[in-house]
Amino acid sequence: MRVLVLGADGYLGWPTCLYFSQRGHEVAGVDNYFRRNAAADLDCESLIPAPDLFRRAKIWEDISGKKIKVHTGDITDYGSLLSLFREFNPDAVVHYAEQPSAPYSMINRDKAAFTLQNNLIGTLNIIYAVKEVNPDCHIIKLGTMGEYGTPDIDIEEGWIEIEHKGRRDKFLFPRQSGSLYHTTKIQDTDMLWFYVRTWGIRVTDLMQGPVYGLSTEETDTDHRLMPSFHYDEIFGTVLNRFIVQAVAGYPLTVYGKGSQTRGFLNLKDTMQCVYLSAVQPAEQGQLRVFNQLTELFTVNQLADKVKKVGDRLGYNVTVERIENPRVEKEEHYYNVHYTGLLELGLNPHYLTDEILETFFTITDKYKDRINKEAFFKGIKWK
Amino acid sequence: MRVLVLGADGYLGWPTCLYFSQRGHEVAGVDNYFRRNAAADLDCESLIPAPDLFRRAKIWEDISGKKIKVHTGDITDYGSLLSLFREFNPDAVVHYAEQPSAPYSMINRDKAAFTLQNNLIGTLNIIYAVKEVNPDCHIIKLGTMGEYGTPDIDIEEGWIEIEHKGRRDKFLFPRQSGSLYHTTKIQDTDMLWFYVRTWGIRVTDLMQGPVYGLSTEETDTDHRLMPSFHYDEIFGTVLNRFIVQAVAGYPLTVYGKGSQTRGFLNLKDTMQCVYLSAVQPAEQGQLRVFNQLTELFTVNQLADKVKKVGDRLGYNVTVERIENPRVEKEEHYYNVHYTGLLELGLNPHYLTDEILETFFTITDKYKDRINKEAFFKGIKWK
Repeated sequence: MRVLVLGADGYLGWPTCLYFSQRGHEVAGVDNYFRRNAAADLDCESLIPAPDLFRRAKIWEDISGKKIKVHTGDITDYGSLLSLFREFNPDAVVHYAEQPSAPYSMINRDKAAFTLQNNLIGTLNIIYAVKEVNPDCHIIKLGTMGEYGTPDIDIEEGWIEIEHKGRRDKFLFPRQSGSLYHTTKIQDTDMLWFYVRTWGIRVTDLMQGPVYGLSTEETDTDHRLMPSFHYDEIFGTVLNRFIVQAVAGYPLTVYGKGSQTRGFLNLKDTMQCVYLSAVQPAEQGQLRVFNQLTELFTVNQLADKVKKVGDRLGYNVTVERIENPRVEKEEHYYNVHYTGLLELGLNPHYLTDEILETFFTITDKYKDRINKEAFFKGIKWK
Repeated sequence: MRVLVLGADGYLGWPTCLYFSQRGHEVAGVDNYFRRNAAADLDCESLIPAPDLFRRAKIWEDISGKKIKVHTGDITDYGSLLSLFREFNPDAVVHYAEQPSAPYSMINRDKAAFTLQNNLIGTLNIIYAVKEVNPDCHIIKLGTMGEYGTPDIDIEEGWIEIEHKGRRDKFLFPRQSGSLYHTTKIQDTDMLWFYVRTWGIRVTDLMQGPVYGLSTEETDTDHRLMPSFHYDEIFGTVLNRFIVQAVAGYPLTVYGKGSQTRGFLNLKDTMQCVYLSAVQPAEQGQLRVFNQLTELFTVNQLADKVKKVGDRLGYNVTVERIENPRVEKEEHYYNVHYTGLLELGLNPHYLTDEILETFFTITDKYKDRINKEAFFKGIKWK
């Protein structure tokens, strides 16, 4: 299979390139290095000093004998995206090339506009390139569980049948999210759904919860192949931030009451989910939606787990409740259905103490690179 | 009240400026002349040769003694929109400044990207300008009934309470529309709803059906004050196109079976609806949604009405069914609720034979300007 990975330099993008390559697929990756540049501007760089894509592809080739074609490019430039499609003619495209940070999208108008522009024009360009070059190409698009928000009803897997005044119809599950970034992910799903209905393209939307971890079978082969890894307020997800805070001797920063519940998964499971979706693609004219998570935790539960394991390893972990910078419900109903990926064959790695210990051990090697200033930047939703 | 009209040069924008001005409000209007330019490029110009905003404002001042401040400007340029807000400090902003054509958004990637960019960045800029200058300013945003599509359940007025597995919650009514343009209107509603929840701004979303007519009390005072009026495949709505086709001796072009049902309203009623919404604004933190239509017709019913009245007036009207260029259901359930604007005080002008006769009479005066090439351009959805 020919797989094009957009956003190939990222936390998920690079391990995905390796995962497909290792399994014998032809992989091309493209990135505009937005995140590296934004992280440098905002003083919140990756914990791990990842070489650029060209160097990493070379290292991977030396180790595995397998080639990954890498390109520097911006998918909002339609001409260059189209050339890439024509040249590589992918069977599947994995779309990670969105501005992925909720706090970033809330900083000011310019960053909100960038997020809208990047995420929607990028997605539109992929749709047009697929239609133009190979309408059979499967688009695997990363959504987020954050699109659903915290409704007072069960969260189904993408779709809901509504009975209303004695009649029935099926719709995309209602979504109302907690940031402009998350809103762009609702918007691009609506756009994909329109073109699925109209042009019959095939799309899988992976509604992913926050991912944690920095280890996959392939990235473990050489430290220079490890993913870029953010632990800051802007680009870091909660558990990754907690581990790094614990290692740095900084309090775990819990927003508000900490009873916010979310669905989480291990980086290794993201790889499995994307891979399983690619090898068992959506049908033509189908928007297939999976809720991509393996277990639910409150923020407090995560903090407790990190404290327990961290204390045992001698880190003396403290927890601090800070004023919630976000506008979100801190106590809410949350019952999510997520069986689709298990049915495709997902074999979850649950968050055990052993996994947390390994996570601490790897993080500790990069202790000297931790920038404590990055933990709290004071970006407020209001 | 100070009312800022965005898209003031348009079919609805200019009559709206006059309507508020006539009733003693302070009005400012802005337009980037996108539609005039696009219509010139695509050879589908307005039936009525409307002078530019500056000349029309002068004519209005001569007639009424009332000033309308007009500006040439593009609301996707945040700096200039912000200056305008600071200078004029509106109490209400009426947002017509979207790329409003479904076929235009389906021509190619560039026009789809323009539609996305214009409609979403424009709306984002309004939200930010309101927050920056006066968070109490009421945003009246034109939505479209097309956002709902044709679901198999009753279409409620913006919101629906869903009962699911024994629990209940209220959501925006599910929307899945028939073009990229309509999709951008779903997207901007989701964005407005996010900022309403987060910042407590006040928004009214008018889910408007196709508008017909070219007469309001104010535009009737002088032929140079008439609205720009499009009857072509790209910018014309169905009834407006039918009338001009009938006058030109061109067959009424019915797409497919013609049993597509939509909700319609008279241009005079659009004026009432926008005005009633402005003087009875949404609350802070409220996204208020109204379905803006006064009666339902199938396309065939409209064609029959136009033929009946046209034949009586001696036009010898024919009807031609052409292959539907759109991807849409031609036979569908359609039961729409639209009581909110009636409760605010809307006094509808229904589509009587007398109204159609007047419509014919006015159109006939511009008979020589009809460009038959504009009726059919062959833009296809697939």
